[in-house]
Amino acid sequence: MVIAVDAAGGDFFPANPVEGGILAMAEYPTLQIIFVGPEAMIREELAKHEYDKDRVHVQDAPEIIGMEESPSSAVKNKRNSSITIGLGMHKAGKCHAFVSAGNTGALLAASTFILGKLEGVSRPTIAAYFPTLKGFRLLVDAGANLELKPEMAVQFAKMAQVYSSAVMGISSPKVGLMNVGEEDEKGTETTKEIHAALKSIEGFVGNVEGRDVFPAKADIFITDGMVGNILLKFGESIPDALFKMVHSAFSQVQLEEKEMKSVQKVLKTALNPFNYENVGGLPFLGVNGVSIVGHGGSSAPAIKNMIKAAVDCIESDINGKIVASLN
Amino acid sequence: MVIAVDAAGGDFFPANPVEGGILAMAEYPTLQIIFVGPEAMIREELAKHEYDKDRVHVQDAPEIIGMEESPSSAVKNKRNSSITIGLGMHKAGKCHAFVSAGNTGALLAASTFILGKLEGVSRPTIAAYFPTLKGFRLLVDAGANLELKPEMAVQFAKMAQVYSSAVMGISSPKVGLMNVGEEDEKGTETTKEIHAALKSIEGFVGNVEGRDVFPAKADIFITDGMVGNILLKFGESIPDALFKMVHSAFSQVQLEEKEMKSVQKVLKTALNPFNYENVGGLPFLGVNGVSIVGHGGSSAPAIKNMIKAAVDCIESDINGKIVASLN
Repeated sequence: MVIAVDAAGGDFFPANPVEGGILAMAEYPTLQIIFVGPEAMIREELAKHEYDKDRVHVQDAPEIIGMEESPSSAVKNKRNSSITIGLGMHKAGKCHAFVSAGNTGALLAASTFILGKLEGVSRPTIAAYFPTLKGFRLLVDAGANLELKPEMAVQFAKMAQVYSSAVMGISSPKVGLMNVGEEDEKGTETTKEIHAALKSIEGFVGNVEGRDVFPAKADIFITDGMVGNILLKFGESIPDALFKMVHSAFSQVQLEEKEMKSVQKVLKTALNPFNYENVGGLPFLGVNGVSIVGHGGSSAPAIKNMIKAAVDCIESDINGKIVASLN
Repeated sequence: MVIAVDAAGGDFFPANPVEGGILAMAEYPTLQIIFVGPEAMIREELAKHEYDKDRVHVQDAPEIIGMEESPSSAVKNKRNSSITIGLGMHKAGKCHAFVSAGNTGALLAASTFILGKLEGVSRPTIAAYFPTLKGFRLLVDAGANLELKPEMAVQFAKMAQVYSSAVMGISSPKVGLMNVGEEDEKGTETTKEIHAALKSIEGFVGNVEGRDVFPAKADIFITDGMVGNILLKFGESIPDALFKMVHSAFSQVQLEEKEMKSVQKVLKTALNPFNYENVGGLPFLGVNGVSIVGHGGSSAPAIKNMIKAAVDCIESDINGKIVASLN
């Protein structure tokens, strides 16, 4: 298996993508990695590590897409970026997947444009891992499609069901529609139409509310990209906010230093479900290929886990299953 | 000042509304309370307390609207409910405000129908207190208007600015529009139009993201009722989820019993910003009167704080200020 890794993406390139790729090779003894990005920069970084040289390739891609750059113009104008070249290699069959912690918008645009859509898919969707009391569950769509239509919602639900059973090991994943109340008639005209359409899905549990996310009343929370993106980013901000709240609580509750350390240790352990490093990346579902998008701040282990997600997608033939599920 | 309290609303009536009203009288020596609900039930509950009998009145309202009842049919069919009779007394000038922990939908419908709208208001809105690292800030709309139009957003922002400066003591409140990114051009066509309209508001800070809520990048977060309601209910579920996460962390981190107690104490203090009891109720802005809506699970102190919010609205002439701000 060959996976292309964007060595010019994320806040800490080339260090983290290169180290992440090498970590992944240690875990998968037959895996080959193609690092895509400015060649000299990658080779300089590789020189800091020991690794099996026969399994590492470097593909030069001199242009760099910034994290805040406009996705559409970046994809159009930077034909020699790591994203464009890496996805082009995937399209040409030179690798089985492309993983990147780079500019999310550019990745989504380029993935759809270069890889194309799977047969029967009307719109690809980005599914986000969301922490719950039962472990990570999926929030779909996480920002790629700001408006949702019934047909799209049904496809998103089916694609997410395939992904969560094949990659996350959730059997018979339950689907819930994010709404303002549980009753069928709640919501806007659009949510009512989506609700009616989702009734065709096996495992649809009806409307779910904001309070149902942490208890994981569903395994897949269907919503439009506006709600999904706001909720995802709000969720990501919880650990930091909480540590700050605990810090200011220390001034109100008198504790010995040893106890303060215990509190911080427990809190860190308790907040581990929020640690996105464990999942590494978000799958972009519905494109004709395997494209995994990571957080800009991804560490080397997070990049390794993005590669792991790509391996799982390839080994489980997720796209074959998605096509079968939709058609 | 006379405030009518729904003694037949919430999960714990008549006990909590009655006790909350009596607590409020202790805090405001000239305040008079009218308890509205089934008379015998209220008198039986009052008999358990000591209070100034000259300042307490009972208004019989024999019908009870259930917490899960359909708002529209409840308001239409139960003309002798505490909500309908209490708001009718407010409309007739027999009291200065009506506060209730009852069926939120029924309260909103009845408030608009019975009290009517303030001059120049196109749609009333429910503003929710949301915990941040700087204390409570407002999330508007919290579920009364699932779809937002530019004109509505501008009015909601202005009404919330009046409320947050008059009642919450926030000077020059900043307004942010919840969106998927900070850049002006982010979002749907509707959010772009709303963004453009909000530029007319003094204190508009532009688009804000999910991660900007806890740091209170704005004092007023404008969004549609779908996003607002989902985010509000998700936020309310954080403390319980966190205590469960900490509980399971105890099995991974070995602690002495004394340390475990310290952890729980610190966490309880740290999570105090989430304690909605401190605010008691949400103002329903734009109606021609003072109507405060509380959480179904409101305790007696929460009911007291709802009454306090009503007193603040009356004393600051919030509706006069809203009309001046809009016209």
